[in-house]
Amino acid sequence: MAKMNVGIIGAGRIGKVHSQSIINQISEVKIKTISDIYFDGAKEWAEKMGIPNATQDYKDILNDPEIDAVLICSSTDTHAQIIIEAAQAGKHIFCEKPVDLSVERIEEALTAVEKAGVKLQVGFNRRFDHNFRKVKELIDAGKVGDLHIVKITSRDPAPPPAEYVNVSGGMFMDMTIHDFDMARYLIGSEVEEVYVSAAVMVDPAIGEAGDVDTAVVTLKFKNGTICVIDNSRKAAYGYDQRVEVFGSKGKVEISNDTPSSAVLSTEEGVFSDKPLYFFLERYMDSFATEMKEFMDAIVNDKETPVTGIDGLKPVLIGLAAKKSVLEGRPIKL
Amino acid sequence: MAKMNVGIIGAGRIGKVHSQSIINQISEVKIKTISDIYFDGAKEWAEKMGIPNATQDYKDILNDPEIDAVLICSSTDTHAQIIIEAAQAGKHIFCEKPVDLSVERIEEALTAVEKAGVKLQVGFNRRFDHNFRKVKELIDAGKVGDLHIVKITSRDPAPPPAEYVNVSGGMFMDMTIHDFDMARYLIGSEVEEVYVSAAVMVDPAIGEAGDVDTAVVTLKFKNGTICVIDNSRKAAYGYDQRVEVFGSKGKVEISNDTPSSAVLSTEEGVFSDKPLYFFLERYMDSFATEMKEFMDAIVNDKETPVTGIDGLKPVLIGLAAKKSVLEGRPIKL
Amino acid sequence: MAKMNVGIIGAGRIGKVHSQSIINQISEVKIKTISDIYFDGAKEWAEKMGIPNATQDYKDILNDPEIDAVLICSSTDTHAQIIIEAAQAGKHIFCEKPVDLSVERIEEALTAVEKAGVKLQVGFNRRFDHNFRKVKELIDAGKVGDLHIVKITSRDPAPPPAEYVNVSGGMFMDMTIHDFDMARYLIGSEVEEVYVSAAVMVDPAIGEAGDVDTAVVTLKFKNGTICVIDNSRKAAYGYDQRVEVFGSKGKVEISNDTPSSAVLSTEEGVFSDKPLYFFLERYMDSFATEMKEFMDAIVNDKETPVTGIDGLKPVLIGLAAKKSVLEGRPIKL
Amino acid sequence: MAKMNVGIIGAGRIGKVHSQSIINQISEVKIKTISDIYFDGAKEWAEKMGIPNATQDYKDILNDPEIDAVLICSSTDTHAQIIIEAAQAGKHIFCEKPVDLSVERIEEALTAVEKAGVKLQVGFNRRFDHNFRKVKELIDAGKVGDLHIVKITSRDPAPPPAEYVNVSGGMFMDMTIHDFDMARYLIGSEVEEVYVSAAVMVDPAIGEAGDVDTAVVTLKFKNGTICVIDNSRKAAYGYDQRVEVFGSKGKVEISNDTPSSAVLSTEEGVFSDKPLYFFLERYMDSFATEMKEFMDAIVNDKETPVTGIDGLKPVLIGLAAKKSVLEGRPIKL
Repeated sequence: MAKMNVGIIGAGRIGKVHSQSIINQISEVKIKTISDIYFDGAKEWAEKMGIPNATQDYKDILNDPEIDAVLICSSTDTHAQIIIEAAQAGKHIFCEKPVDLSVERIEEALTAVEKAGVKLQVGFNRRFDHNFRKVKELIDAGKVGDLHIVKITSRDPAPPPAEYVNVSGGMFMDMTIHDFDMARYLIGSEVEEVYVSAAVMVDPAIGEAGDVDTAVVTLKFKNGTICVIDNSRKAAYGYDQRVEVFGSKGKVEISNDTPSSAVLSTEEGVFSDKPLYFFLERYMDSFATEMKEFMDAIVNDKETPVTGIDGLKPVLIGLAAKKSVLEGRPIKL
Repeated sequence: MAKMNVGIIGAGRIGKVHSQSIINQISEVKIKTISDIYFDGAKEWAEKMGIPNATQDYKDILNDPEIDAVLICSSTDTHAQIIIEAAQAGKHIFCEKPVDLSVERIEEALTAVEKAGVKLQVGFNRRFDHNFRKVKELIDAGKVGDLHIVKITSRDPAPPPAEYVNVSGGMFMDMTIHDFDMARYLIGSEVEEVYVSAAVMVDPAIGEAGDVDTAVVTLKFKNGTICVIDNSRKAAYGYDQRVEVFGSKGKVEISNDTPSSAVLSTEEGVFSDKPLYFFLERYMDSFATEMKEFMDAIVNDKETPVTGIDGLKPVLIGLAAKKSVLEGRPIKL
Repeated sequence: MAKMNVGIIGAGRIGKVHSQSIINQISEVKIKTISDIYFDGAKEWAEKMGIPNATQDYKDILNDPEIDAVLICSSTDTHAQIIIEAAQAGKHIFCEKPVDLSVERIEEALTAVEKAGVKLQVGFNRRFDHNFRKVKELIDAGKVGDLHIVKITSRDPAPPPAEYVNVSGGMFMDMTIHDFDMARYLIGSEVEEVYVSAAVMVDPAIGEAGDVDTAVVTLKFKNGTICVIDNSRKAAYGYDQRVEVFGSKGKVEISNDTPSSAVLSTEEGVFSDKPLYFFLERYMDSFATEMKEFMDAIVNDKETPVTGIDGLKPVLIGLAAKKSVLEGRPIKL
Repeated sequence: MAKMNVGIIGAGRIGKVHSQSIINQISEVKIKTISDIYFDGAKEWAEKMGIPNATQDYKDILNDPEIDAVLICSSTDTHAQIIIEAAQAGKHIFCEKPVDLSVERIEEALTAVEKAGVKLQVGFNRRFDHNFRKVKELIDAGKVGDLHIVKITSRDPAPPPAEYVNVSGGMFMDMTIHDFDMARYLIGSEVEEVYVSAAVMVDPAIGEAGDVDTAVVTLKFKNGTICVIDNSRKAAYGYDQRVEVFGSKGKVEISNDTPSSAVLSTEEGVFSDKPLYFFLERYMDSFATEMKEFMDAIVNDKETPVTGIDGLKPVLIGLAAKKSVLEGRPIKL
């Protein structure tokens, strides 16, 4: 693989995760610059990790002719604008999800990308997880047959602060959006209709902020598959991330990863480990694989594994889900 | 326990199951007479099992003053009528599910039972199964906290002949009805709204007969719990009967019973047993327990564990489910 | 199957188990008489179960020309004598394990059986258990290849009273004897050498009575297979009965049966059921199958599935095990 | 943590593993030099990984006053000599297992270390594995009570070439030695007696080379615990690494790690993943943790988690195991 230089825009949690993946696991790629509007954070991280440059202005990255690709890890409201500018600067782009909360803005960004002929990959990391990927492989190998019912369980260990749901676009936009992507990825078809049964059961403040924290979402796909997603903002036992795919030839299921496989049997009962609690711990490997495949798509001039359209579609589904809650009926896309 | 005499009306598969449970496991209860419109079948079974009397006419059982209770195991269309007559004859009644496909007829039957002051138990045997009962116990012990989401998986190993769905009232009436009962049993509340996403994926003949064979049913309960049931007429790997209950304190799940716990690991992979295929094999113990608790309710003058109302409610939900499929929208009860 | 009459000698726990299996599950066989030196017990049980005759003297059974087979469920020290008398009386014989603690006495009994040409089956019920039988089937189907290592775990939920070990012949004779039989059954070869590492860890009183309560037994078989058995008189979590068979093509393992498959996940951890605690609960089905196959061997004039030699060999291994503990070295058989 | 410089002696497979762990995960430690008698290999690796210096002569590392610690990853026969020289040079030492095949040479090395007052850690990496460590934690927390029986299963996916067993010292020295260490680690006591039942079942050439490839090893510990290890050079299904610890309060077991948790159920059966096949894949995390704890012991002047004595004892047990096979009897240590 040829050497490549990248810049990281945003030195928050996810920007740090990606920089670690690249430094530790992708020796052919060099992080040249990291930017953050909070400069001290960028600078401190750059020094700690041996990244040569830190800056407050992401445009320094876009203007650097030595940089081949950028990772957009800034806040969601800046994504579309930076995509457009990065595309115009001829950089390949990895952008965290969601691309934007507005369909119009996403479409503008995708148009800019297309016009510039650069690569764009959206950060739906779960596609790269060992468990979900194995499910996809088994589906693709025809082991499950035609897909009839897909069940996705996605529950967070703890709810976000109620204020967050205003910024994030709400549960369907910040959390279920991963599940919408997973459903599309596994089923390989597009959603036709969405119906949601939702409620506030975890935190009344979330309800007061105008969002829900518990939901069962039914998706009808064009190929006939019915998908049902169940979400909760709070699973007392930790981060719950499972999928079951049922088809004409059988089913495939995955269970949660745990810190160890130890099972203790005593007079009191049989005890085993809870799921990994924190999403970074659960999905750390998937972040590294996602980076590798992004770099590989650039170097070998292939389609990225999560395209701009893959960034747009879950937002459309999420908006329909919100409408379904408001109107209490199934919504066609 | 005092000695008790019972009569069994209907010597088909389920009538035989109940007679075996009583003979093998409830020594205090005597089956005095078994009836079937196909007399030879009743007679042959009576001889084989040591049941003193066989008859073609179930009224011989109702008119026998020595008989305390009757088990109605005849075809569904006869249930309501026999309940009414049995109640008038002062017999305690165990009736197979569904009580009837018509709400009116069920209500007439329940009125007759109430007027006569006899016991009535409806044959929702899964409530007595070791796995489902353990789930109920954990819920009742507060281990799961307030119930947020209940997921029921109920898939048959093979579809019935397409003609059957006309007689049975369709999938929601002959199959999902068990799941409606299970949902009410576990959640301890009543259904407020039903939404169904359904399709014909298993057998086109079922579609031609006007029914569906695959469905995801969302139920909103009065206490706020959201329940989702997924059904298929055909699971290639066998009879799939699971439940997952998720609440404020955690979740409880059950898996399928298997013929053995053997796990074989070879170069080709790791192999374990499929679920028990046949419902009688899977639920045999539950049928015996259901009988014991029916007899116990009579002898100790307690409420039966599955009452007449428990027989009525799932039919109401099933009718709403059918309507939801037809109209493509959620239906309030 | 032709009708057959049997007599049961000994109305203790295991005599009752067998009588229930026959009454509930083998309708072609009639228990005509049950005997016990404690007559009231036999009589009470006979009345409860509808067995026509009870007697204090087992010779009443042996002298009854209508009785085809006897079940010897009396105390171990009477087994050999009753086998001899029953054989002379021309009765087919089911005898509980162990046949006797003395090799000489066993051989006398087997000689009498052979001379009389009657069937003899010894009560190693675990061979008929669903899990162990599945392991045997997989071995016989060649799925594990040539057997290299067989591991048997056999731990009781609670130790017997220390006095019992004097009567029983000690742990190797009353408990490990089942494992010796299982090893021979699965491996299909004979033991060549025994080495035991044993200790008193559960109850010092057992040590004072001259026995051990914890042991690891290594058996070398003629066909090269190495078998290791680990025993304890007390597993805090209940009755632990597992086997793992490792061979040239892979391994097969079984786990314990549990009351339910429920798994509860909470903030405190993940909890599942302990193994079934009581051997009668764990092995109930195996007792019934063992009876059916005994009756089948008689009616169809086949070799019994557990022969007289199968009764003798584990006693020889047990005696070698005791010697190995005393002398601290491997003992050849 | 203060900055520290290390040198790596031996650029073979395990030397590369350790260098990757340090570079990727221990930013406070710098690898200054790597040596290998095959210089080109060392040089190539140094360039690839950004290690400043490569040399053919490990003495260049020992003579470098800037280097604080060395990792001895060369062939076993050089370990003791290099330990002695490194100690004399005042370097802290991490040495791969086994320290040596000769007890005398090990003792000389340990004496040199003690005299020099440097740290020594021996490379028993499994102690740092997430599963084994959880077992140890549960033991230390008293959850299992007093230890009665410890069972270690350790089977390789494929046998080494027969010639290797002459160099390695045989199965007990190159493979079981890890299990001897694990037994000591978990049980926290010393071995008193060893008995082995072993055979050649996998590859006759191994037998011709004077070694065995299948074994069941029984260890009696001073504290009374009985440990049984079963080994095979070839498990058809992959690398099998499990432990079960049974004590007065219960048991704890671990199972193998797998590439994914996917379970596929079809008409043919239920299929799941085989264990991870390759030891580097299975134990990768443990190698990194072992390095971190070695560095931590140096920086914070603590005892290393695997001391020189921990390097010696398993060799003594291994020699006794070999003697037990030769003499067919238990050997006291």
